[in-house]
Amino acid sequence: MRPGIVGVGMTRFTKQEDRRPEEIAGEAVRAAVRDAGLGPEDVQAAFCGNVQLGMGVGQSALRELGMTGIPITNVENACASGGSAIREAVAWLQSGAAEVVLAFGVEKLTQTAAGMLDMGRASLSEEVGLPLPGAYALKARRHMDLYGLTREQLASVSVKNRANGSRNPYAHFRSPVTVEEVLQSAPITDPITLFQCTPNVDGAAAVVLSTEERARDLVSKPVYIAGFGMASGNPVDETGTEGDTVSRAAKAAYESSSLGPEDVDVCELHEPFTITEINNIESLGFCEKGSGGEYVEGGRADINGPGVAVNPSGGLLSRGHPLGATGIAQVVELTWQLRGEAGDRQQDGARVGLAQIMGGNVIELDGNACLVHVLTN
Amino acid sequence: MRPGIVGVGMTRFTKQEDRRPEEIAGEAVRAAVRDAGLGPEDVQAAFCGNVQLGMGVGQSALRELGMTGIPITNVENACASGGSAIREAVAWLQSGAAEVVLAFGVEKLTQTAAGMLDMGRASLSEEVGLPLPGAYALKARRHMDLYGLTREQLASVSVKNRANGSRNPYAHFRSPVTVEEVLQSAPITDPITLFQCTPNVDGAAAVVLSTEERARDLVSKPVYIAGFGMASGNPVDETGTEGDTVSRAAKAAYESSSLGPEDVDVCELHEPFTITEINNIESLGFCEKGSGGEYVEGGRADINGPGVAVNPSGGLLSRGHPLGATGIAQVVELTWQLRGEAGDRQQDGARVGLAQIMGGNVIELDGNACLVHVLTN
Repeated sequence: MRPGIVGVGMTRFTKQEDRRPEEIAGEAVRAAVRDAGLGPEDVQAAFCGNVQLGMGVGQSALRELGMTGIPITNVENACASGGSAIREAVAWLQSGAAEVVLAFGVEKLTQTAAGMLDMGRASLSEEVGLPLPGAYALKARRHMDLYGLTREQLASVSVKNRANGSRNPYAHFRSPVTVEEVLQSAPITDPITLFQCTPNVDGAAAVVLSTEERARDLVSKPVYIAGFGMASGNPVDETGTEGDTVSRAAKAAYESSSLGPEDVDVCELHEPFTITEINNIESLGFCEKGSGGEYVEGGRADINGPGVAVNPSGGLLSRGHPLGATGIAQVVELTWQLRGEAGDRQQDGARVGLAQIMGGNVIELDGNACLVHVLTN
Repeated sequence: MRPGIVGVGMTRFTKQEDRRPEEIAGEAVRAAVRDAGLGPEDVQAAFCGNVQLGMGVGQSALRELGMTGIPITNVENACASGGSAIREAVAWLQSGAAEVVLAFGVEKLTQTAAGMLDMGRASLSEEVGLPLPGAYALKARRHMDLYGLTREQLASVSVKNRANGSRNPYAHFRSPVTVEEVLQSAPITDPITLFQCTPNVDGAAAVVLSTEERARDLVSKPVYIAGFGMASGNPVDETGTEGDTVSRAAKAAYESSSLGPEDVDVCELHEPFTITEINNIESLGFCEKGSGGEYVEGGRADINGPGVAVNPSGGLLSRGHPLGATGIAQVVELTWQLRGEAGDRQQDGARVGLAQIMGGNVIELDGNACLVHVLTN
């Protein structure tokens, strides 16, 4: 049974210091339920992705919407928490436990103040003097050494995603940048500059899912979850570049959907730093290992370019990365793309979408919860 | 498909200041996998219940056991986190996503220092000057007013559970207490005294589950999850006593198992304070509303008494309550009971077990994630 996505909604991802997390989450959940043509009383179970807000986030947010009584479960898988909330919602649907479920995610980084730039402080990488940007910078340096990745190619990821984000009213950064501006922005850890890092923002996103049968009844343009893969593992391989965690999750998702990388039209992937997009493009099989930089710089990842449109939303670099919400926002964007409702950033004729999200943990840097969902219309 | 429980294990719940959370969790997981006659490589997905240890607890613990590569997901539902970890494991089995899965929970309250006595500080109850014991004391007072609950009946819960715990090598408190000792222990919030509060301990528990078919192959005495219910809601009803969250979860669990309260032989339920056991005995339908105190004081909840053996492990009051681990430990104890392996605390001929766990959150006091599992052999 392919679960259907019948409603999506999100807040703009941006600084929202004045709003409580419950208000932020509530805006996204209300929008998703309304988008499905349902009322709060139609949702039979809910899953909340969150990292930093503490106990019972999902319950607090839904109580304010009057959505009490139903099973509510909070899921934490670091940056992949939103993807995991969707996954648990799908498992309930596929197990027959419910017909209409909600997955949402929320984070308020302006309150908890530990986004990707800070998060390394809680990790082993910090213990050895290597906060997260430094760890990713090392991966970038190794890619340069082994495959000839250039600084301009790295910067081209930010240029593309900021251009895409300028067309997305839900994105934090709405202004495009040039390669020169990216390279000349504040140095963080060479070769990573400030404009190659995701901003710390607040936000929420929500998805209402149903059984395949209910989806056909509920909405005129359902989107389906056609494949899924999940893996953990070492984020670094023996050569010092990307490990096989993403590629193993992708392989499972492709196999379960009977689709391959050549079928994907549009992709939302995890790029807290520019190097991550390049590694993930390779791991997802959109190009050969080592050629991700050329793929982006050459325009193949552009909307309506010759390859897979990668991060048409603007991705983490432009839309922003409120941890628990990001994996949900990816599926929101893909749903809009597969419905043909993505406005100025529409990938024409998009039929197959892929969402990839990765969560780290306090010991190693990333790679310990990677989820890939393949979506079709 | 009824999932099977094929392996269980736990650490003693007690002060374990010298051990890292990963070591504590590892001991329980290794024991459960070995109990199933499996190796770490046989587990296809894992779910970790934890409240206070921060990001990526499940991944950190399993990495030390070499259990990498597989999907690992952390679940947080306050005191009910362990029950929710089991639930998500079951959903994966029933959805067909895996055949052998692990659910485990771990907490180190001597490190994070926020057990039930302290937790109210983070809740609305604290903002209005009412930490958790005070909130439960109010419920106890209301039960006294409405139904004539006595202080001696409250104390008899601790007496029973400490007697049970004295027979359980995994319990923190191994010494029995008398009604007088309970009533004369330090006052916390009248009528709740110190010996009516769960101790802050460290510990982990783990369960290996499989599809029904695999369970029959793997072990000689599989235990099955025959029913499940989950609810959220207001913890207090209009009379000021227990709301209907537990009874709604129980109703769903009974219906899905085609069993009723009259079929239950042995029960592990959530009693951070004595009043909670009395309320839950009533909500689960073991006796009429208002008569839970008489039920316990009269010995009906004793092991091999005339009613349901309640908390033969010693429960939260004697075994202790390392938050994320408790819901798992309940199922571990019931598995031993249904296998006939519970030693000195065996309920003779136990065929049907029930586990009930409730998690609160930072806004209201409890009742926002209640899970009930019905087990059979």
